[in-house]
Amino acid sequence: MEPFSVVRVIERTRDGEPLGAAAIETFVAGFTGGTIPDYQVSAWLMAVMWRGLSDDDLTALTLAMARSGETLDFTDLFGAGRPVVDKHSTGGIGDKTTLVVAPVVAACGVPVAKMSGRGLGYTGGTIDKLESIPGFRADLDPARFRAILAETHLALSGQSAALAPADGVLYALRDVTGTLESIALVASSIMSKKLAVGANVILLDVKVGRGAFMRNEADALALARAMVRIGNGAGRRTAAVVSDMDRPLGAAVGNALEVIEAVETLRGGGPDDLRTLALHEAAILLHMAGVAPGEEAGAAMAAATIASGAAFAAFTRTVTAQGGDARTLDDTDRLPRAPVVAPLLAPADGYVTDLDPLAVGRASVQLGAGRQRKGDAIDPAVGLVLHAKPGDRVARGESLCDIHARTPEAADAVREVLLAAYRIAPERAAVSPLVKAVIHGDAETM
Amino acid sequence: MEPFSVVRVIERTRDGEPLGAAAIETFVAGFTGGTIPDYQVSAWLMAVMWRGLSDDDLTALTLAMARSGETLDFTDLFGAGRPVVDKHSTGGIGDKTTLVVAPVVAACGVPVAKMSGRGLGYTGGTIDKLESIPGFRADLDPARFRAILAETHLALSGQSAALAPADGVLYALRDVTGTLESIALVASSIMSKKLAVGANVILLDVKVGRGAFMRNEADALALARAMVRIGNGAGRRTAAVVSDMDRPLGAAVGNALEVIEAVETLRGGGPDDLRTLALHEAAILLHMAGVAPGEEAGAAMAAATIASGAAFAAFTRTVTAQGGDARTLDDTDRLPRAPVVAPLLAPADGYVTDLDPLAVGRASVQLGAGRQRKGDAIDPAVGLVLHAKPGDRVARGESLCDIHARTPEAADAVREVLLAAYRIAPERAAVSPLVKAVIHGDAETM
Repeated sequence: MEPFSVVRVIERTRDGEPLGAAAIETFVAGFTGGTIPDYQVSAWLMAVMWRGLSDDDLTALTLAMARSGETLDFTDLFGAGRPVVDKHSTGGIGDKTTLVVAPVVAACGVPVAKMSGRGLGYTGGTIDKLESIPGFRADLDPARFRAILAETHLALSGQSAALAPADGVLYALRDVTGTLESIALVASSIMSKKLAVGANVILLDVKVGRGAFMRNEADALALARAMVRIGNGAGRRTAAVVSDMDRPLGAAVGNALEVIEAVETLRGGGPDDLRTLALHEAAILLHMAGVAPGEEAGAAMAAATIASGAAFAAFTRTVTAQGGDARTLDDTDRLPRAPVVAPLLAPADGYVTDLDPLAVGRASVQLGAGRQRKGDAIDPAVGLVLHAKPGDRVARGESLCDIHARTPEAADAVREVLLAAYRIAPERAAVSPLVKAVIHGDAETM
Repeated sequence: MEPFSVVRVIERTRDGEPLGAAAIETFVAGFTGGTIPDYQVSAWLMAVMWRGLSDDDLTALTLAMARSGETLDFTDLFGAGRPVVDKHSTGGIGDKTTLVVAPVVAACGVPVAKMSGRGLGYTGGTIDKLESIPGFRADLDPARFRAILAETHLALSGQSAALAPADGVLYALRDVTGTLESIALVASSIMSKKLAVGANVILLDVKVGRGAFMRNEADALALARAMVRIGNGAGRRTAAVVSDMDRPLGAAVGNALEVIEAVETLRGGGPDDLRTLALHEAAILLHMAGVAPGEEAGAAMAAATIASGAAFAAFTRTVTAQGGDARTLDDTDRLPRAPVVAPLLAPADGYVTDLDPLAVGRASVQLGAGRQRKGDAIDPAVGLVLHAKPGDRVARGESLCDIHARTPEAADAVREVLLAAYRIAPERAAVSPLVKAVIHGDAETM
């Protein structure tokens, strides 16, 4: 084996040659510890963007990133080999699926350990949504996270900065060197944090469309496959769903509004698309966790937890354990509500044939529901509730959506972008399927 | 036009999109002035390695690099539009062509302004060779360089650090980020210094083979074409020769030994290959400079300067003007000579079918004729004189080459690598042509 050299690591990557786990570990430790300078790391990042990495090297990179800081291990809580689930979405407009899937799975007795970053840009983070519940604390230290996980089988926490610090170094460089879009680098960034948390059953929801980071299906599939390979290569049971984000998911967009919709879904209501996707993902997880013999059985188990109230109870338990006021879940009128709710009226009769999720996301950020810059405060109450979505028939003067705003002026300010987001035509247009593909460790269904 | 953004420059380069001269100038000024950080420059370098640059962008980059520091202009010396020649070789083992071409061209009344870097690795620099002449000063400041050029029509100087400082920044980063080998970056590095010096007739000699930076003909042709395009794009008459470096050039390898061989050639002797290449290059330059109506006429003029002694006189004048002891040129025994001259004997009868120039270069560096690291001292006296080269018949026990060494032990230490460099076989093998291609501004002959 040749002696370690940063230049050789860059050259081999540039030439599409394998690096090997030992060189990757030394490289990751070097740049995390500050002994390898930024300018070598950024040249390497561009070489990865150019050539990609082999499956083995990408898994080794991700594991080295995961091990660059604090890691969690739950085997002492539940026993070795017992499933602990994590579920991650790459983010989309109105995507509150985790708030439904996690309690459903926990209600089946399978622990769910979920740590997530904050939202940035048009897609809100799970943590931001939960923090609209008065009293809810997302900043759990590892001991408290473990205690709540042991007690309720569901812990939902913000991500410690000590988790995968190598990813922090790489992300900061990628952001300013034109290397954000590499499939390999996106996959390793997401998976390094999943692997650090210590769940051994992982489901990834890769969103695709105008409202997602991945704009086309080929890239979304490539990212999903890369993450599944990394997870399996690291010894975790991993699967991925590629799902539509060319329209918003569900009706609610905005933090408290999305919690309300999640609660409705956990209680057996909620919009069709959200319920369908959440049950599908819960079914996959219950099968992967070994508590359901197949996905059909898993789907039945998941539906039963909703029908019985067990899923809603599981959510309530965790919210309470994390300091949240559970009365707001029983009576969602107690959640923060915007003082102004103004309808956006349909300008014509017809069918909604398109609703641009990016424009909806922009409007919601403009209302104050999301961050334009890291560290911005968000308004938990504001957002949108969509009454008409692609495929729906509308009559002129009906409400297309309700704008939940701080002031009438703020509501008026987003009318134009929202009207432009809707396309209404005389004929109904086909609506693309919600789930594009499911990628299992070995098999794949589309 | 979009506002300048470093990230956009990187992204556009990464995506193979044109940058435009304005963005390139801002970028070069930024990294030369230190306001654009290294980590963005190195990511950009890797993107250039990946995608290359358009012809216009590469010319704009090279001009911006050339203008990043001191530039020279000789129009006040010789008048606007009057030719001033520069000749550059990418470097090879035994390549002392400049020492012949420059005096020949100057002897025809065409000024030759030659600034060059020091040699590193297996190829000695022109300046290192000249400094083996006792008293010779290569560190001319711009005023002295101009004065000698005006007086003798030939000035041979080391390169000021103030010349194209942008290239210094890029080269230092390329050296540690796996981006040395980019054709575009090599071409802009070389040409930025040519353009800064202010010659308006430029001939490039791109060496190709085991003893050169370019190992294969396709890369050498690509580099030659890129440099010719840059030169022409910048308004300089530029041509390139692609010539063989799969065997050493001439017989002498080592600093004083190469000066001796150049003097012999200027006096009408010297090895065939060196004389042929030097006359060919001089002929191209005389034609480009407009003093010969064609290359054939140029070749005749060049040969006449040698036959008449004018070329040798031109060389002597410049050496004297730069402080060198001209008596050493009349009597080359006065140049530094190694105390030990030991023959390497042919181990068998036969024909030399191969002589690896890299091994010859390594042996010469080991003897002390070249630098292993920047700043190393070199021994002007030591080196090799090859008596047998590919195509030659040898008899067992004849001298293949003389080893000029500081001690008998130093001579013995290189015998093995030299013997391994020679291949001797019963049958003569074909010898590849010395000149592979000539690339003119528009036409090209091969």
